[in-house]
Amino acid sequence: MASPLSTLCTPALVVDVDKVKKNAQRMIERCEKLGVQLRPHMKTHKTLECADIMTGGSRRCIVVSTLAEACFYADHGFDDILYAYSLPFDKVERCAILSERLELFQVLLDHPDALEQLKKRPLRDGRLWHEAGVQLTGVYAHCGNTYNCKGVQEIQAVAKETTSFTLQFMEKLKAVGITCKSSIGSTPSCSHPVQDMAKLSEVHPGNFVFYDVQQSLIGSCGVEEVAVRVLTRVIGHCPHRNQLLIDCGWTGLSLDGAGKLPTGYAVIEGHPNLKLLSMTQEHGRVEPISGKLDYSMYPLGSLLTLIPYHSCATAMMHPVYHVHSEGILVGKWIPTRGW
Amino acid sequence: MASPLSTLCTPALVVDVDKVKKNAQRMIERCEKLGVQLRPHMKTHKTLECADIMTGGSRRCIVVSTLAEACFYADHGFDDILYAYSLPFDKVERCAILSERLELFQVLLDHPDALEQLKKRPLRDGRLWHEAGVQLTGVYAHCGNTYNCKGVQEIQAVAKETTSFTLQFMEKLKAVGITCKSSIGSTPSCSHPVQDMAKLSEVHPGNFVFYDVQQSLIGSCGVEEVAVRVLTRVIGHCPHRNQLLIDCGWTGLSLDGAGKLPTGYAVIEGHPNLKLLSMTQEHGRVEPISGKLDYSMYPLGSLLTLIPYHSCATAMMHPVYHVHSEGILVGKWIPTRGW
Repeated sequence: MASPLSTLCTPALVVDVDKVKKNAQRMIERCEKLGVQLRPHMKTHKTLECADIMTGGSRRCIVVSTLAEACFYADHGFDDILYAYSLPFDKVERCAILSERLELFQVLLDHPDALEQLKKRPLRDGRLWHEAGVQLTGVYAHCGNTYNCKGVQEIQAVAKETTSFTLQFMEKLKAVGITCKSSIGSTPSCSHPVQDMAKLSEVHPGNFVFYDVQQSLIGSCGVEEVAVRVLTRVIGHCPHRNQLLIDCGWTGLSLDGAGKLPTGYAVIEGHPNLKLLSMTQEHGRVEPISGKLDYSMYPLGSLLTLIPYHSCATAMMHPVYHVHSEGILVGKWIPTRGW
Repeated sequence: MASPLSTLCTPALVVDVDKVKKNAQRMIERCEKLGVQLRPHMKTHKTLECADIMTGGSRRCIVVSTLAEACFYADHGFDDILYAYSLPFDKVERCAILSERLELFQVLLDHPDALEQLKKRPLRDGRLWHEAGVQLTGVYAHCGNTYNCKGVQEIQAVAKETTSFTLQFMEKLKAVGITCKSSIGSTPSCSHPVQDMAKLSEVHPGNFVFYDVQQSLIGSCGVEEVAVRVLTRVIGHCPHRNQLLIDCGWTGLSLDGAGKLPTGYAVIEGHPNLKLLSMTQEHGRVEPISGKLDYSMYPLGSLLTLIPYHSCATAMMHPVYHVHSEGILVGKWIPTRGW
């Protein structure tokens, strides 16, 4: 039986699977056209289903932000996993075990001490280890400064600069006889790639599969491409404060985005005059940007839809994502958590 | 074999069980002395083990913030549960089922429409329902404005005012023939109760079992009473920015407390000159409040200990709490999540 979104108890994170597929497909095609390998980042959603969509079902060539994600994906048949985190010294043994289990498991190093840590734990079958030491697979840069951009032009200027720095570094490595891969990331730069990025081996964006209000303000996407929402209900009328209470507090949205939007912590879809002013653990306070609230428009129990400022932070708060196609529920995705 | 805290992978939420027991016991004794029933709130920790400590093992007379908590505790033999949330219209059926299952399950009403919703779903065995309608169990106030206080005197002034308003309201109810219970909450007011609170039926604080930096600033506790920490490790040196990177981002601490402390998002125990300036998903940026960082004091892999600004928000980010006694690990607590 077809259940519409309105049957969900709130707050609920809802994922538009058609938009997810479209966002994923567009990135896959963009990278194919450019001639660069896409290695999508899993940190935004941390689910199997979305990973399948982002890898086109290959279950190969992904980036993760935690070892818990790495193990979760390894346990489910994923391989060629890049743990995009400077080798944490407390997790060398767990990293070594993953390296021994998988065809390819990569870690990041940014300090000579980390190399010493790796050398102390040779791998069982000698994989990755040469007699001379560790094998350098590639050079990884985040391109995170694209998050300070506004508009395609600024994004592409940063993308160009990051690409150029990275390629110059590759040349220097080549001059001393080292040939290896290169990868840059960030959803803004990969949503509007510059031609030079074709000279890189890989790109590793992640947020693009959901996008969010932040990405729309940067210029990575339009608001209509954002694939996630938090459904919430009106649970209180506070005429003495000219406010509504909704059943979404920071446990349902996160506190990310404070002070960034005229509409407060989120965009309330279809209600441009409403502002999510503040949140407690399980309550949100909503007020009009101007004028008096017309409470008859927002009866107790009525639904409101929040577009998150930062979908990575909002998704993190939810133990289950409710997946829909055109407003009809089609499944649930369960993310992995922890480290 | 005794494992010290330093064997944990980080970031990790660690709970000092001795402090938890002490905080719980002190509140139990305070309420006994005052002659008021303690109904502890579970929202801060959401675990069975901590609920047992807070109820002195009775598994009776608790408050919860979500229906997921209510079901979790009901499933484990808890009863006399107050769901401290204005009746959510989408959850009437689930509330009714809990009312039918438990000896006592209470919901809050703050609007006549909510009463109509309840009346539409009579309980199977008639519990709580009279021929005349719904039974009013009591009056509930949060006393949340104590969070704006600084020091015992201000806390007690608010506690006195809230108690006085509540008791006046009880008198008005009595005048029209209604006798029922009364309850106020908040960790600040219950940490420093005023004598008049003895005239209330119940109090319902929750955070006190962990406390946090916020509570110490309000004056509810001393920092030495805070029972939780986030363990984190140094994972990067950034001398060009005079910063350290630590492996605790907002997934390990939450973004609560922004702009509230001279030391940033947390207090870094034993390092009063360090500030947790900002966080990304999995990284924290730490810089000295003044002067140049001496990196030899913070080698890669070394441990730092964060005292959270708001323990409710920090605990929410962790799928498991690591419990210790005097620094030796003694177990894990698994919280419930969702709604």
